[in-house]
Amino acid sequence: MPSDANSMQRFSRAQIEAFMTRCFTAAGLPDNDAATVASLMAEGDMLGKDSHGIFRLPGYIGRVKAGGFNANPNIRIENERAATALLDGDNAMGHLVVKRASEIAIEKAKTAGVGWVGMYHSNHAGAAGVYSNKALPHDMIGLYVAVGSANHLPPWGGTEMLLSTNPIAVSVPAAQENPIVLDMATTVTSYGKVKVYAQRGLEMPEGWMVGPGGGPLTDASKAETGYLLPIGGPKGYGLALIFGILAGTLNGAGFGKNVVDMNADATSVTNTGQFYLAIDISAFMDVEEFKKQVDVVIGEMRGSPSLPDVDSVRLPGEMAHVAYADRTANGVPLPDPLLDNLAKVAEDLGVEGPG
Amino acid sequence: MPSDANSMQRFSRAQIEAFMTRCFTAAGLPDNDAATVASLMAEGDMLGKDSHGIFRLPGYIGRVKAGGFNANPNIRIENERAATALLDGDNAMGHLVVKRASEIAIEKAKTAGVGWVGMYHSNHAGAAGVYSNKALPHDMIGLYVAVGSANHLPPWGGTEMLLSTNPIAVSVPAAQENPIVLDMATTVTSYGKVKVYAQRGLEMPEGWMVGPGGGPLTDASKAETGYLLPIGGPKGYGLALIFGILAGTLNGAGFGKNVVDMNADATSVTNTGQFYLAIDISAFMDVEEFKKQVDVVIGEMRGSPSLPDVDSVRLPGEMAHVAYADRTANGVPLPDPLLDNLAKVAEDLGVEGPG
Repeated sequence: MPSDANSMQRFSRAQIEAFMTRCFTAAGLPDNDAATVASLMAEGDMLGKDSHGIFRLPGYIGRVKAGGFNANPNIRIENERAATALLDGDNAMGHLVVKRASEIAIEKAKTAGVGWVGMYHSNHAGAAGVYSNKALPHDMIGLYVAVGSANHLPPWGGTEMLLSTNPIAVSVPAAQENPIVLDMATTVTSYGKVKVYAQRGLEMPEGWMVGPGGGPLTDASKAETGYLLPIGGPKGYGLALIFGILAGTLNGAGFGKNVVDMNADATSVTNTGQFYLAIDISAFMDVEEFKKQVDVVIGEMRGSPSLPDVDSVRLPGEMAHVAYADRTANGVPLPDPLLDNLAKVAEDLGVEGPG
Repeated sequence: MPSDANSMQRFSRAQIEAFMTRCFTAAGLPDNDAATVASLMAEGDMLGKDSHGIFRLPGYIGRVKAGGFNANPNIRIENERAATALLDGDNAMGHLVVKRASEIAIEKAKTAGVGWVGMYHSNHAGAAGVYSNKALPHDMIGLYVAVGSANHLPPWGGTEMLLSTNPIAVSVPAAQENPIVLDMATTVTSYGKVKVYAQRGLEMPEGWMVGPGGGPLTDASKAETGYLLPIGGPKGYGLALIFGILAGTLNGAGFGKNVVDMNADATSVTNTGQFYLAIDISAFMDVEEFKKQVDVVIGEMRGSPSLPDVDSVRLPGEMAHVAYADRTANGVPLPDPLLDNLAKVAEDLGVEGPG
């Protein structure tokens, strides 16, 4: 009997993190790397990014086992300047590459004011906000952009899928308020969210995707026949194009026709491109004053009267903060179809399941 | 008799530039600054940015005469690091401030890899693409973001106008192809375009603005009663918020409730904020190889089959390149209502008109 797609069980962060660490270790990653990837993935789940955390484990493990990821990479800096570096990810799991890039960018920003690290030979790294948040404890603004790991978006007016969702995440620290964390795709929705809808058997709203004939596509199980729609039409196309050039082309990474669909191909090197920008607030103004002013901005937005059908104005990242608090207290909810997949992974690797 | 809003006369770039130089000089700007502002404004007209070039002259001149701009500013660097600077615009015309910022950012990028210059005490600077383009001759990518000079956008779900169109422009050099120039507002349309529609008596399409009750607003003459819509709903709100924090709050410039509407108030210091980012391509890869790859990307986009009602897929900036070629050959078309306004400015200042 198929499991109920609407049924959920909750697991603590420690449980899912330990489970993922077991899986990656069993699949061949060094202990440290397995724990690092598991922690970054679990952080995505804590932030409520259900399509970019443990949901990805079966795909990632499959790729490690197929040799599509380099389990023992030598991630190294190339072409370094005072404020920039190009990072060769050596086909490591993207989580390891982007974490390293964020550390380099933050270190450079401490002296140069900003640090920009481009990446190539990287891979899918999960939830973007996990990385932009890395700048916050350093009193910096973090910005992270990636070339999406599969093309689902044609250029505006066209029908050939040459672009991806090319997501952007930006984290801005505040004083008393929670940080502002914008974590968005340049499409109306992300392909990851479409996959969650497909797995849960939910129908998508009109406007997320169009089918091959240009009409609305709402059946998530048929997502592969259609393509995502960009925000603002030609503007979202323009943003996806620019982000792709900055995160991909500029770093010698894939963009356009040479993007490898990670989900359709478990062995080819994806040569995924990303970049990370850290901005040291103290290079521009007093850090405490800045944070207070961000509080003021947040208060102004939240203080706006709202439309009749809206409870209150929200800030980017607000739902992630709510999810984080809920999941800290009650655990991460995992739907039965995902648990079935995770059980298969555990069995296959000969490790204990998450429960 | 009112003049025909659809009638256009053409003027050469040299004519409108010389005319604007005469006007600014007569209004009290130093000769050099008058010529610089006139050249940057005319460049906007050449790029087809009809709402951000000479169209703005009457407003700018009014503000210079009212003392709202500092006609003899001391634009100066503060808080400098290897890759960053904060620039105090001293309430100069924004064109002078952003041009200076672009020069500093480009100079810093030559050694540090990237250069980021934040601005405050600046002002409206016209067409954003004019400035991002400044990086191109240096084999750099240019990126420019501004806090819009008046708030026309509420936060998503709200009704209080706390945000502006907060535009972004990015210029990317190519080899054989024209550069990619994305020059967009985070709203479905810019307020400048709405003003052009109002002046020409044209009706706006639905989806550009909503009226006070939340319904569509298509009468451009009533623009002041409604507000612009963000691209992608909450995503465009998020982008406008982040761009406003980076261009405004981070530099100690106005953002949110303390933005001064330049058009409604000719004397208060606007404390406009902007930032300019220059990225040195050679810090990441061989410049010629990068440009060739951008050509490849452009060719791929253009090569996509197009939807039935679309002639061909376009690249960001393509219409600006077409306008530039047309206006170089045939001059800049100015509609009669604008010419009437320019004639009044000329008469008022006692200078010769553009013709």
